[in-house]
Amino acid sequence: MTPNDLASVLSTALKFKQQARAGTLQPSLKGKSLAMIFSKRSTRTRVAAETAMALLGGHALFLTSADIQMGTNESVRDTAAVLSGMVDGIFARVDAHRDLMALRTHASIPVINGLSDDYHPTQALADLLTMYEAVVADDILGAGAQLPDDWTVPDTRFDPTKLHGRKVAWVGDGNNVCHSLVLACAKVGLNATIAAPRGYTPKPSIVAEAARMPVVTHSPIDAVRGADFVFTDCWVSMGQEAEAAARRKAFKGFKVTRDLIHAAGPKAHWRFLHCLPRKNDEVDDAVFYGRESVVFREAHNRKWTIMAVLHHALGVGSWQG
Amino acid sequence: MTPNDLASVLSTALKFKQQARAGTLQPSLKGKSLAMIFSKRSTRTRVAAETAMALLGGHALFLTSADIQMGTNESVRDTAAVLSGMVDGIFARVDAHRDLMALRTHASIPVINGLSDDYHPTQALADLLTMYEAVVADDILGAGAQLPDDWTVPDTRFDPTKLHGRKVAWVGDGNNVCHSLVLACAKVGLNATIAAPRGYTPKPSIVAEAARMPVVTHSPIDAVRGADFVFTDCWVSMGQEAEAAARRKAFKGFKVTRDLIHAAGPKAHWRFLHCLPRKNDEVDDAVFYGRESVVFREAHNRKWTIMAVLHHALGVGSWQG
Amino acid sequence: MTPNDLASVLSTALKFKQQARAGTLQPSLKGKSLAMIFSKRSTRTRVAAETAMALLGGHALFLTSADIQMGTNESVRDTAAVLSGMVDGIFARVDAHRDLMALRTHASIPVINGLSDDYHPTQALADLLTMYEAVVADDILGAGAQLPDDWTVPDTRFDPTKLHGRKVAWVGDGNNVCHSLVLACAKVGLNATIAAPRGYTPKPSIVAEAARMPVVTHSPIDAVRGADFVFTDCWVSMGQEAEAAARRKAFKGFKVTRDLIHAAGPKAHWRFLHCLPRKNDEVDDAVFYGRESVVFREAHNRKWTIMAVLHHALGVGSWQG
Repeated sequence: MTPNDLASVLSTALKFKQQARAGTLQPSLKGKSLAMIFSKRSTRTRVAAETAMALLGGHALFLTSADIQMGTNESVRDTAAVLSGMVDGIFARVDAHRDLMALRTHASIPVINGLSDDYHPTQALADLLTMYEAVVADDILGAGAQLPDDWTVPDTRFDPTKLHGRKVAWVGDGNNVCHSLVLACAKVGLNATIAAPRGYTPKPSIVAEAARMPVVTHSPIDAVRGADFVFTDCWVSMGQEAEAAARRKAFKGFKVTRDLIHAAGPKAHWRFLHCLPRKNDEVDDAVFYGRESVVFREAHNRKWTIMAVLHHALGVGSWQG
Repeated sequence: MTPNDLASVLSTALKFKQQARAGTLQPSLKGKSLAMIFSKRSTRTRVAAETAMALLGGHALFLTSADIQMGTNESVRDTAAVLSGMVDGIFARVDAHRDLMALRTHASIPVINGLSDDYHPTQALADLLTMYEAVVADDILGAGAQLPDDWTVPDTRFDPTKLHGRKVAWVGDGNNVCHSLVLACAKVGLNATIAAPRGYTPKPSIVAEAARMPVVTHSPIDAVRGADFVFTDCWVSMGQEAEAAARRKAFKGFKVTRDLIHAAGPKAHWRFLHCLPRKNDEVDDAVFYGRESVVFREAHNRKWTIMAVLHHALGVGSWQG
Repeated sequence: MTPNDLASVLSTALKFKQQARAGTLQPSLKGKSLAMIFSKRSTRTRVAAETAMALLGGHALFLTSADIQMGTNESVRDTAAVLSGMVDGIFARVDAHRDLMALRTHASIPVINGLSDDYHPTQALADLLTMYEAVVADDILGAGAQLPDDWTVPDTRFDPTKLHGRKVAWVGDGNNVCHSLVLACAKVGLNATIAAPRGYTPKPSIVAEAARMPVVTHSPIDAVRGADFVFTDCWVSMGQEAEAAARRKAFKGFKVTRDLIHAAGPKAHWRFLHCLPRKNDEVDDAVFYGRESVVFREAHNRKWTIMAVLHHALGVGSWQG
């Protein structure tokens, strides 16, 4: 996705959000269907994609690993060829990123990455939208103002210059969510700093794709200092249960607490983000439910950004906005 | 739900049922979505809610415990906050009633109880509608007449006086279904008598909520004597498999049989109801499939009553009918 | 299904396929709902039925064995009676064919066989449609021409005389798919030859239903010689894992390979079909992905034929086309 594509999708998301509240949303995906292949289950991504399709007049099919056993009971190549003639797009949550690439190779319809072990691009879109809304709200509602749930940006044209030069701090695991956030930041001119323990920094090969290289450190304080946006994610994700003890030990000192914030000193009107679900390891209640937290807005923005992606990928004027 | 709310919802159910048969049903929930969180699975409740949403133009998402792990992988508080911005209502089938209350506390959207260990209110609505239809059919089609499957009440204004003073007998487990039936009976002036073995009577704290206190006995014969409506439910519900032997022993003598009916002597044109699924323990075939049985109409009424609840809870003129 | 019914359904499938491509498909099942009861899961059948209902404006409910436990938690009789008042049709994938017959006995709504241990009729419809398209394409695009994915038959009236007297070869297990194919071939005048190992020939009682008896042999070469259409299916289907070694031994020599084709000598412009999912046992890549293969068109035709069946079974002018 080029910076222009990104701006186009985010503008569409802003427009859809406004139209849905006004009741003027047009069903641009009538008669279209989407296969949701989920090898890992997820509430947020699934609810976002399924309600987004419904609001746009289309139909989403939820296919779990028990339904489709892609790669087990049938080759990825054959599943891709079969679905290409039965639905209009595939939204896939896979384990190995190579499974997603194989789907893309063999499908003749759009394949959207709903999460792989290396990337989580639809999460990064929601993250960008949420940071953008916060910055615009600072201008309109006053710096550091709470964002009412039903507040939306009046001007639906996404303007990346509002984010230029601001600092994003990621504290914790340099995982798939971190990877996609770093790549997305680079495209809109945000400066990313990642504080991760040794052994848990982001993959150099992926970070190297970013037009604007992130700073990688092992110090949460250095990362949070002067940050506009502070992100974290849980320390033990689905499928990592066996590593739980080792991870908790390695991530000691990386919990985002009020103490860390005070010691580090972010910008005056900083915001806290988290892709959810949240565990107690990585962030305390005072931050997670605090006045700087925009985590639930961020979760809700999964819906509007995925809706925009689906509209662009499956709609008639694909990638025209 | 006040008696007026109840009458309003049941009037809407009668109207929807008539309109669906006439093909004049209006899609009042277009663009609305409903998260169905089912920690216990169920055919009837699920099919009712999902088809009801579809008929009203909305979309239902079926989220099992494997999808959402509310309370395990994410706190109820966070799940409630996330869903509040992504869907328009939650229909929850939970184990502990406190989980439902927690959802209500933290959600900013309507949360409908689809079954908890203490209550089953949407079942009670279907029970009321079915008893009402039977009484009206007695007037119109003749006392004790069989109700043709496609027969509906001509006047869609629910008139509780038609049920006033009639006797409802519950024979068996004083469980969640029994609790909600007792509370519903009190609101429309039905007199409830519950015959349950010692140790299986309804919870006193719940029964005490009823404006009209039910009679509680250990004698099925006393309960069925003079009854207009005889209810039972299975002796071993989902999740109680470990108690099966103890329950079967305790409920000996509580099976609803032709012999019990003859010995007790209900009203001449009594009716039999059961929330289903039916096992062989609690009722014999002669009663379950007999001419007094309205169990399948009762099951079908789950759809129309849940549709009415969804219309009132999520529709534009909420609780206006 | 009579030959006339079959022609009517296939004509509707051809018409729907053309209309969907032209964007002129009419939603003939608005307000209708379909319960999909799947005791065996399946990607193709499920995606076909669910997207077909959506395209026709209706709603499909996907009920797995974990949701409905038909025959375990509730009798088939009761499930049939309950669903009859809540949905407009049942699409059932069962294990024992007698479960399907029991559903039909007790339901008052159409029950469509989505697969049983004895039959797979909706697969046979897709097989017929695919063979028909290939024959028409030979006339229009040139004998043996590749069929572009978006190519459809211009004249949507299915004309069985185009298939009369052609030879269908089935190589492998004389299973449920084979049974339904044989019965369907008989209705349109196709001559079927089945090559199966001893112990794996089709059930004589089922084959005897065919108006036109198939030839049964143990020689793949005899079957493929002069064939217009060569079919196979996997050797070890879902639920037969315990028999895998014995089956692989028994089916030795029944793999459809280029060598078998050359040795046997089918018609010059023969085609290869497979109901999928394909394993590596029963067919080599050179045939499966070869220029004679129409396996993915066949898979896509599951959608259009099931859509036609649903339209005829649930639509207003049932079985009128």
